[in-house]
Amino acid sequence: MCGIVGYIGIREAYPILMDGLHRLEYRGYDSAGVALVSDSGNLNVYKSKGNVSDLESVVSDKDCVGTVGIAHTRWATHGVPSEANSHPHISGSGDITLVHNGIIENYATLKEQLIEKGYTFKSETDTEVLVQLIQYTKDSVPDCNLAMAVRLALKKIIGAYAISVIDRREPDRLVCARKSSPLAIGVTEGNKEIFIASDASPIAAYTKHIIYLNDGEIAVCERGMDVQVFNLDNEKISPEVKEVDIDLNMLSKDSFEHFMLKEIFDQPNVLRDCMRGRIVNAPYSRPWSPHWHGDKCDSLSVILSAVTLHRRELLRARRIIIVSCGTSWHAGLIGKQLIEHFCKVPVEVAYASEFRYSDSVIEPDDVVMAISQSGETADTMAAMEMAKANKALVFGIVNTVGSSISRISDTGIYIHVGPEIGVASTKAFTGQVTVLVMLALALGMAKGTVSQEEYSEVLHELVMIPDKIQKVLEQNDKIKNIARRYTYSKNFLYLGRGYNYPVALEGALKLKEISYIHAEGYPAAEMKHGPIALIDSEMPVVFLATHHQLYQKIVSNMQEVISRKGRILAIVTEGDEQVKAMVDETIEVPPTLACLAPLLSVIPLQLLSYHVAVAKGLNVDQPRNLAKSVTVE
Amino acid sequence: MCGIVGYIGIREAYPILMDGLHRLEYRGYDSAGVALVSDSGNLNVYKSKGNVSDLESVVSDKDCVGTVGIAHTRWATHGVPSEANSHPHISGSGDITLVHNGIIENYATLKEQLIEKGYTFKSETDTEVLVQLIQYTKDSVPDCNLAMAVRLALKKIIGAYAISVIDRREPDRLVCARKSSPLAIGVTEGNKEIFIASDASPIAAYTKHIIYLNDGEIAVCERGMDVQVFNLDNEKISPEVKEVDIDLNMLSKDSFEHFMLKEIFDQPNVLRDCMRGRIVNAPYSRPWSPHWHGDKCDSLSVILSAVTLHRRELLRARRIIIVSCGTSWHAGLIGKQLIEHFCKVPVEVAYASEFRYSDSVIEPDDVVMAISQSGETADTMAAMEMAKANKALVFGIVNTVGSSISRISDTGIYIHVGPEIGVASTKAFTGQVTVLVMLALALGMAKGTVSQEEYSEVLHELVMIPDKIQKVLEQNDKIKNIARRYTYSKNFLYLGRGYNYPVALEGALKLKEISYIHAEGYPAAEMKHGPIALIDSEMPVVFLATHHQLYQKIVSNMQEVISRKGRILAIVTEGDEQVKAMVDETIEVPPTLACLAPLLSVIPLQLLSYHVAVAKGLNVDQPRNLAKSVTVE
Repeated sequence: MCGIVGYIGIREAYPILMDGLHRLEYRGYDSAGVALVSDSGNLNVYKSKGNVSDLESVVSDKDCVGTVGIAHTRWATHGVPSEANSHPHISGSGDITLVHNGIIENYATLKEQLIEKGYTFKSETDTEVLVQLIQYTKDSVPDCNLAMAVRLALKKIIGAYAISVIDRREPDRLVCARKSSPLAIGVTEGNKEIFIASDASPIAAYTKHIIYLNDGEIAVCERGMDVQVFNLDNEKISPEVKEVDIDLNMLSKDSFEHFMLKEIFDQPNVLRDCMRGRIVNAPYSRPWSPHWHGDKCDSLSVILSAVTLHRRELLRARRIIIVSCGTSWHAGLIGKQLIEHFCKVPVEVAYASEFRYSDSVIEPDDVVMAISQSGETADTMAAMEMAKANKALVFGIVNTVGSSISRISDTGIYIHVGPEIGVASTKAFTGQVTVLVMLALALGMAKGTVSQEEYSEVLHELVMIPDKIQKVLEQNDKIKNIARRYTYSKNFLYLGRGYNYPVALEGALKLKEISYIHAEGYPAAEMKHGPIALIDSEMPVVFLATHHQLYQKIVSNMQEVISRKGRILAIVTEGDEQVKAMVDETIEVPPTLACLAPLLSVIPLQLLSYHVAVAKGLNVDQPRNLAKSVTVE
Repeated sequence: MCGIVGYIGIREAYPILMDGLHRLEYRGYDSAGVALVSDSGNLNVYKSKGNVSDLESVVSDKDCVGTVGIAHTRWATHGVPSEANSHPHISGSGDITLVHNGIIENYATLKEQLIEKGYTFKSETDTEVLVQLIQYTKDSVPDCNLAMAVRLALKKIIGAYAISVIDRREPDRLVCARKSSPLAIGVTEGNKEIFIASDASPIAAYTKHIIYLNDGEIAVCERGMDVQVFNLDNEKISPEVKEVDIDLNMLSKDSFEHFMLKEIFDQPNVLRDCMRGRIVNAPYSRPWSPHWHGDKCDSLSVILSAVTLHRRELLRARRIIIVSCGTSWHAGLIGKQLIEHFCKVPVEVAYASEFRYSDSVIEPDDVVMAISQSGETADTMAAMEMAKANKALVFGIVNTVGSSISRISDTGIYIHVGPEIGVASTKAFTGQVTVLVMLALALGMAKGTVSQEEYSEVLHELVMIPDKIQKVLEQNDKIKNIARRYTYSKNFLYLGRGYNYPVALEGALKLKEISYIHAEGYPAAEMKHGPIALIDSEMPVVFLATHHQLYQKIVSNMQEVISRKGRILAIVTEGDEQVKAMVDETIEVPPTLACLAPLLSVIPLQLLSYHVAVAKGLNVDQPRNLAKSVTVE
């Protein structure tokens, strides 16, 4: 979603702000803008529809002087993507400038009141209302400075926001605030330079010391001074400065053409990271080395501090509710099957956006698990608040260390796959599934609902998954060739059963997200209850047909598609001859256990969607309309 | 799915068999065939790809003499639709002829064995294997007649079947049998005529007295003699003869062009039937008259014998699991919201096909509800067997009286909307939702989890729903006009939230089923997690935007679509001005409570899909590839 960058310090702000915007491009946006204030109080604001490079072209011959500034990438919610609607927005007097993430719910009412007082508006946005309200407050309240004006204005706001504000009449100050939308402040030795951003990635190159603002907090940033934090009632708050390690290599594409491709190929390594220290060689409690194989792994076990520390609540749970959105929801559907199988406890998987407004019954002995890559998904956070209000244990499964969800969870597990930049999630999905396998095993062992034999077998297989993913990745050229043949398809069906059903949903979502092809996933047996009517020679069907319990049933489903002249691409287990003889194309994955199948069968689908998008000439890392982290409802 | 008709009696069989096939056309099929045996033992078999009229053309100048015969409509599972693959299948010697519904799972093994013994095969079907096996048994076992050969052959079969078999050397006999696939036998005074069919509709015009075969039973039918029933071990069984009332008017189209349109327009009346006798005017316990309104309804209450009789099991339930497929699954998603709201008990909704093979935890105090129009859905029945094995109460919500699901349920509620002939389900959906509303209210009242005030308010509104549906139906011409504008769209998104989210799924399914347009339903807030990438000026989006809790959120979602130039058709509440000013097209429905919204908002979507299909020149009542009742996995 929208991205914010801010800087106040001793260097020219412009190059730092642009570097920050580039680092936030992965979040998805449709226009960009920057505002700079020079020491003498000159304000320059530049905006452009399109991407950050377009903005840089616009600015190339303009005045960019200033050591304080704010910048923004916008993802349209109110009003079309346009120069007028993009940020920063300026107050009528031309003094105050503001960038904003989130939604002001009561903007229509406030706008009317300001219009009555003679204010005029240039855009259709909710954000312009906020900057005018701050200006009005500053002008109408005696002895009011920028910080006070922001605070008083925010007291009138209903909605979600992260904002960063400057005033050309106060060029030594930058004010920012948050509610429901994340904001990070990077501080340096002696606070000579202060960096603001909607997540830590634009800051990481400059400092490791970060303050994460909490809801309802306002920060006043001045060069050379400690950051001052207040709440909306003007009470002073001591901010906690965290040391955050972000691997900057993870933020670059290396030799890959796109972040998405890099992240697909990163999967063997990051899944080893995800398991590291958690899967141990029991007799000596030595951490498992990702390159140990065979008999040395006989006594592997999985140790998760979240399960150890919250054993009591987890064991008594009568029900587990998983809340999530998008790709994380698909991981949740796999989690349900894993937990019901290994732990014999019923699991419900809910769309966070539906759950938060539902009458779902939550008991104090339920466990609510929130899955989110960014850890900032607005709907998922709201669902967690509902669970907390009902006294359930709230368990987070997130990637971004220090994110909002990680902070409001009672406990949880990081997936530790490194920052994910590609808008279409890949390594976060396999990381989430890996964590869910480990969690189901650890909890099953604690409950006594999994046999030692099965536990060892699954762990033994799990540690071999990274090498097996590597084998799938080696077929990249073959998949690229197959993708070419599907470039002009307008529609796809993806079908799978059991553990592979959520993989069908995930494969279809990838194709939607980056290739703009209408692909839909279904449990294979549901095909006969409607979708089969769509099947003809122009509707390719992707079948997940690896060698597991329901293999023969899937083969029957394929026969029904073939009877109707459908074109089939099947993901099969190495050595499969039956399906190969029946269908148009197959891609092989190494054999594994049914419960681990998603970790292998999703890989060719990630690559397929990537190569179809590239063949269509689309911008894989910045698909149209999409945002990386959905921080508004 | 496939349909079976059989006749043995005193009249010419051919016209009776053809009449029966026409009555089964609604089940969906791709080829048809008939076999007749004359009194002198002449066998004639005719088949044709296409529909029953095509078969009649083929037969028009052929010999059709015979007072015993079998006929079939086939829906391809093994082998393409073709004359060779269609039924009846004949044994190599040309004596025995058979029609079959279901799937013989071990046909490949049996076929190999028969080929070794010198048998040859003309088709790719599993059915031909069965008829050859019967022939082989009759020829190789001493003193073996047709009934015995069928019985011994079936003992070797793994799979599902309903079969009807004749032998030209035994022209006074017709043998039939079932396992997992339904079969009904109509008997007349003195058994002068006996009628066989895969459901009661081809029989209803001739007799009300019906024997439903049970799994593993074989029936031997001879003119003028009682039907003899045996199990596979040759033990005699006394069949129960039921009196079945089928309204033959319901089996005709009246003045409507298609069954589907008739059934859409039937909804006000059949929903009154569905409520009749169940919603009563409490003080006098008088049945509620569907035309009472206003103050006379103050003390309405709902009485369901299933709730009265199984009060104890229903009240103690810690969890309710709804299993179903297709449209019934969508009704289940609404049922979840209704039951969680009114009864405060967690509900899980599962695809029957996935549930039956899952490790889902079922406790003896759970209640498993099966929803199915036909009452014959194979996957749903398998899920019920699983529930029974775990000692849960099994509760059926079905339309077809006497169907398999109604017989294996511990208790349940008929939806009583009359036979549904259109392949795309319409009145069964609104009937299912109506039953779920009544069930949630009755159970909520028994549990004390619903206030008297809310209970009365909802019932008061529910009895007015038929009249409100009538008001929506009056907009048929307007919807027809709107449909014309969408005839050439290739893709659609349907978005809704809360109670209207399953309606979005259902609306999309209708369009898929009969218009062959790739339409997909989504909870509106999930749009941002992927599907929004598809939106451009060529992707129409249907929004369910009636005036309820999440109206403003839906309006925000619309703004996001408009920002990306998407074309919007919105279903809104009468008098809505805000959305009308924003979007391309609106269709109004009368105001009602949120929990009843699906009963109104689905109506324009049913009509939309109908009119789009008609405008495209498609066969609405027999959409390609689809079967009415999915009796195989």
